[in-house]
Amino acid sequence: MITAVERVRAAYARIAQVDRPEVWIGLRPQAAAESDAAAVDAKVAAGDRLPLAGAVLAVKGNIDVAGLPTTAGCPAYAYEPDTDAPAVARLKAAGAVVLGTTNLDQFATGLVGTRSPYGAVRNALSPEHVSGGSSSGSAVAVALGIADIALGTDTAGSGRVPAAFNGIVGLKPTFGLVPTEGVVPACASLDCVTVFARTLPEAEQALSLMAAPSGRPLSAPAPRRPGPWRIAVPEAGQLGRLDTGWTEAFEAAAQRLADAGAELLPVDLAPFTEAAAMLYEGAFVAERYTAVGAFIDAHTDSPDLDPTVAGIISRAKDIPAHQLYADQQKLASLRTRALATLGDADALLLPTAPGHPTVAEVAADPLGANARLGRFTNSTNLFDLAAVAVPAGDVNGLPFGVMLIGPAFTDERLVRIAGLLADPPVRLAVIGAHLSGQPLNGQLLAVGGRLVRSTTTAQAYRLYALDTLPPKPGLVRVGTSGGGGTIEAEVWQLPAEGLGKFLAALPRPMALGSVELADGSFVTGFLCEPQAVEGAHEITSYGGWRAYLAALPRP
Amino acid sequence: MITAVERVRAAYARIAQVDRPEVWIGLRPQAAAESDAAAVDAKVAAGDRLPLAGAVLAVKGNIDVAGLPTTAGCPAYAYEPDTDAPAVARLKAAGAVVLGTTNLDQFATGLVGTRSPYGAVRNALSPEHVSGGSSSGSAVAVALGIADIALGTDTAGSGRVPAAFNGIVGLKPTFGLVPTEGVVPACASLDCVTVFARTLPEAEQALSLMAAPSGRPLSAPAPRRPGPWRIAVPEAGQLGRLDTGWTEAFEAAAQRLADAGAELLPVDLAPFTEAAAMLYEGAFVAERYTAVGAFIDAHTDSPDLDPTVAGIISRAKDIPAHQLYADQQKLASLRTRALATLGDADALLLPTAPGHPTVAEVAADPLGANARLGRFTNSTNLFDLAAVAVPAGDVNGLPFGVMLIGPAFTDERLVRIAGLLADPPVRLAVIGAHLSGQPLNGQLLAVGGRLVRSTTTAQAYRLYALDTLPPKPGLVRVGTSGGGGTIEAEVWQLPAEGLGKFLAALPRPMALGSVELADGSFVTGFLCEPQAVEGAHEITSYGGWRAYLAALPRP
Repeated sequence: MITAVERVRAAYARIAQVDRPEVWIGLRPQAAAESDAAAVDAKVAAGDRLPLAGAVLAVKGNIDVAGLPTTAGCPAYAYEPDTDAPAVARLKAAGAVVLGTTNLDQFATGLVGTRSPYGAVRNALSPEHVSGGSSSGSAVAVALGIADIALGTDTAGSGRVPAAFNGIVGLKPTFGLVPTEGVVPACASLDCVTVFARTLPEAEQALSLMAAPSGRPLSAPAPRRPGPWRIAVPEAGQLGRLDTGWTEAFEAAAQRLADAGAELLPVDLAPFTEAAAMLYEGAFVAERYTAVGAFIDAHTDSPDLDPTVAGIISRAKDIPAHQLYADQQKLASLRTRALATLGDADALLLPTAPGHPTVAEVAADPLGANARLGRFTNSTNLFDLAAVAVPAGDVNGLPFGVMLIGPAFTDERLVRIAGLLADPPVRLAVIGAHLSGQPLNGQLLAVGGRLVRSTTTAQAYRLYALDTLPPKPGLVRVGTSGGGGTIEAEVWQLPAEGLGKFLAALPRPMALGSVELADGSFVTGFLCEPQAVEGAHEITSYGGWRAYLAALPRP
Repeated sequence: MITAVERVRAAYARIAQVDRPEVWIGLRPQAAAESDAAAVDAKVAAGDRLPLAGAVLAVKGNIDVAGLPTTAGCPAYAYEPDTDAPAVARLKAAGAVVLGTTNLDQFATGLVGTRSPYGAVRNALSPEHVSGGSSSGSAVAVALGIADIALGTDTAGSGRVPAAFNGIVGLKPTFGLVPTEGVVPACASLDCVTVFARTLPEAEQALSLMAAPSGRPLSAPAPRRPGPWRIAVPEAGQLGRLDTGWTEAFEAAAQRLADAGAELLPVDLAPFTEAAAMLYEGAFVAERYTAVGAFIDAHTDSPDLDPTVAGIISRAKDIPAHQLYADQQKLASLRTRALATLGDADALLLPTAPGHPTVAEVAADPLGANARLGRFTNSTNLFDLAAVAVPAGDVNGLPFGVMLIGPAFTDERLVRIAGLLADPPVRLAVIGAHLSGQPLNGQLLAVGGRLVRSTTTAQAYRLYALDTLPPKPGLVRVGTSGGGGTIEAEVWQLPAEGLGKFLAALPRPMALGSVELADGSFVTGFLCEPQAVEGAHEITSYGGWRAYLAALPRP
C-alpha cells in the first residue's frame, strides 16, 4: 500500500489537475499536509493500528479544524479555532490527514452550492450543473477523487443533495450520534455532521469512528418484526414533478430492492412533503437567526454576505414565537401521521432530490430552485430520522440518487439496505470449462453464480482448442466478415463481488472482455490472450466447446 | 432469468453428474419437484412476488417435509409428516422448491458426517475427507452446487462444522429465532434450525424469511458502544493443537478484520473450552436420551441404529439428575466468566473447527475424532450465543473456516462482520487511460479504488496505440523471448465488487486477464482483443502510455 505521504502527494496533484479552485476555502499548504502524513506513516511503522492511515479528508468550512479559519462561507465571520471539532479530531486520531476546509452555501443555508462569496461550486461531472449544497465543496472533492472521505453537515438535506448530484454516498446519521461541538450552527436542534465517500463501507467506517456518546443517550433501534426488508415506496404520483427520466429511475431502484427480496409497501407521502414545506415557509427558519442573525444585522452591506442567504436569515428576525409554537404543534401531528403510515417498514425509499438544475437556472430563481430541491430531504431532520443517500444509476448522463430513510439509530440497517442498491448483479458469458456440467463450473457456483440462459455468440468469433490444463477453448473475435461462426454460450448472473473474485483468480492465458451474443447484445465474457491461439487447433466449426469434446475419440 | 423448472432440471442433472448418492435420504422424483417448480413459475407469471422463485432447497433429514419420511438418519425411526415444518413451509411459500431430505449423523448426534446407515457423507471437495456433520448432506448439496440453500440443525456445531469443511456459509441463528416445530429434537433446549448457502446474502435472506415470533420473545441486540467493530481474538496458544497451517490461516483472518478497520481485543478462551468439554462429558447429553432414548432402547439390535450414536445416547440413561443440577450451576458460572471476558466486543473470532480429519481417521477413533471437532462450536449453544461460519481461505487445498460468535439477537451484525472476511480487496494493474491523471482514472475511484504502487510489467509485453475513443493502449503478451519490453503500470486495490462492476462496464476491445509484473508476480490487468492490435501502431519502445502521449506533437 502506498504511504500516507504518497497519498497526500497524489491528492495535491489531483487538485492541480482538476482546476476547481472554488472547492476549497482553506486548502492547507501541501507541506503541512505531508508533514501530518509523515507522522501517520511513522506511527504505522512503529506498530500503531490506524484504521484510516493513508486516507485524506476534506472538511466542510463550518466545522472547526485547528489552524484553519472557520468561515461558514463568510470571510467576515471567520475565526481561528484552537482545537479540532471532535468529529475531525476522531478521524485524525484514526490516521486521516486533513487537506483543508471546503466551500459551502453560506451558513449552510441552501441546497444549491452556488450561495458563496468564494464562488459557485460546479458539479463534479458536469460543470454547467450545480454541485448541490450546502456541503458543496466536500461532495465535489470526494467525487473528483481528491479526498477519500469528506465531512458535511445536514440540517435539511445538505449532506445528501450534493451526494446525489455528484454520484457518491452521503450518510445523514441520527441526530446526536456525532457530536456537533465545533460546528457553526444552522438550526442547532436539527444539525448533524455527515460523511461523504465513494463507497458505503468507507462512509460507514468513518461514521463508526466519529460516533460516540454525546448529549443524546444512545439507544439501539427498536426490534424489527423478522422477515424480508420492508421498504415503503410512494406512488410516483405523490412525488410531484421530477426531472425527465427520474420517475423511471426511481421505480427501477424500487424494483431492484424487490429483486433482492425486499417487500415493497405503500406509504402516504403527504405528511413528509407537508413537513418539508414548513422548513423555509414556517417559523423554524428563526433558529438560523438565533445562530447568526446578530452577525448578519451587523454586516448588512458587507460584500462578504451572500445576498440570498442574508435575506432569508434577516427576514426570520420578525417571526413571532407564537407562530413557532403553532408550527411545532403542527409538526408533531405530521410526525405522528408519518410514523403511522410507515408502520413497521424498515425504511422509506425516496429520490434524494426532485431534479438537478443548472447553475443558470438557480441564478434565475434562487429561492424557488432551492426550495424545490429539499422536497424529499427536509422532513428527515424534522421527524428525527436517519438517512443514507446512494447513487442509483445515471439518467441523461448525470447521476441519479435515492435515499433510504428510517427511524433514529437505524443507521447501520439503512446502510445494509442501501447496499442492495449499490451492487446490482452482473452477468458473465461462459463458453468452455465453466459451462454447466464442465469441470470448472463449480467456480461460478462458489461465487454465487446462477444460470440465466443458454445462447450463442454473434456470428463473429473463432474458437480454438488451447493447450491448457484442464483443456479450455479460446474465443477470438474476428468480426462479422472475418469468417467466424456462432459459439455455444451460457449467460450467468452473479454478484458484482463474485465477478470480481472470479476475475482476480483467473489464470493466464484467459481474459474477460465484452462478448457479442446472438441477439446483438454485449455481455462480459471469456476471451484469451492472442499468444495462446498461435498454433492452436481451430474448432469453430463444431459450434461450441461441448460439441467439440463430444466428437473427441474416447480415451 | 431461467425458470424454476429449468433450475430444478439443472439440479437433477447435477445430482446425476456428481454421483454422491449418500447425500440424500429422501430425494424426490424429478417430476414431483418439476411440478412444484411449474407452480412457482405460474405464480410468478401471474404477478406474485416470490423472493426465492427459482431457488432449490435441500432439507436435513430430521426436519419435516410433507410427503417424505422424516428419518433423523434412522430407517426404523421414520415417520411421514402431514405438514412441513414451519421453517420449510416459509421457504416454500417464498418460492423455494424442495429437492429432498439429506443425510445426517443419526439423531443429529455427531460432527463428522459418517454416523449414518445411509452411508458416510464424503467431503464435497476431497472425498477421502469427512463432510463434517451432523448436517452433512445439506452442506455437501450446497457445496456441490446442487442446492442453492439447505437447512441444517445445530445443537453443538452441526450447522457450522460442515460449512467449514465444505467451504460454504453456515448461519447458526439465535436460539428461538427460527421455530423448531417439526424438527426431531437432539437437545431441545439447544437445537436451532440453520441455513447453508454459498454466499452470505443468500443465507441471510433465507434466515430472514424463516425467522418469526416464536416461543421466545424477540428482542433487539443491546445497544453497542459506537466505534469500529471490536473483535475478541484469542491467543494462538489458547486454541490448542490445530491442523498444519490452520493457526496461520486463523491469524490471517484476524488480520483481515484489522485491515478492514476492526479493533482486535484479547479474550480468555478458557470458559469457552471448558463449557465445550461439558457437552459430551457432562450431564447435558441426557437431553438426547429424553428425545429418542426410549426408541433406541426398543431397537438395540437393529442394523438401522448407528452403533456409535446408539452407544452415546444409551449411556446417557443413567446420568443422575443431581449431576445435571451441578453441571447447570457450573455452566452458569462459566457463562458469566465468558461474557465478562468478551466485555463489549461485538464478536468473538474462532476457527470453526480445530482440524479436518479423513474418513479413515474418524473410523479409527469415532469418539475422539468427533469430540475434538466441537472444541470451538459447542459453547455457542450452551451460552445462548449466535454464530456465523464463513470460509476464510484454503489451507493445503482444503477450505479453512472461521466463526464470528456474538450475543443473542446480534445475528445481523455478525453477518456484516463476516462480510469483511468474505470479500478481501483485489488488485488491478492499469497501463493506459486509467493511470493516475489520465481521463478514465475516475472510473477506478468511483468503484472504491486506491493506488497501491507504481511499477512496470515484466519484459514480456508489446504495447500498441489502439484506434479507440478516448485513445487507449493495447497490451499483448509476447513472452520473455518475443521481443517485448517493460511497460509502465500502476497497481490499484479495490473491493471485489468494485472490480466486478468495473469489468461489467468495460467496453470492447479491452479485456482483463492476468498480467506479469516486473517482480515476477501476476495480477489482474489490462489486455485487449487480438483484432484490436491488427494494423495498430506499436509503441513498446516508449516504455508506457504516458511517455508515448508526452512525445506526441501538441495539437
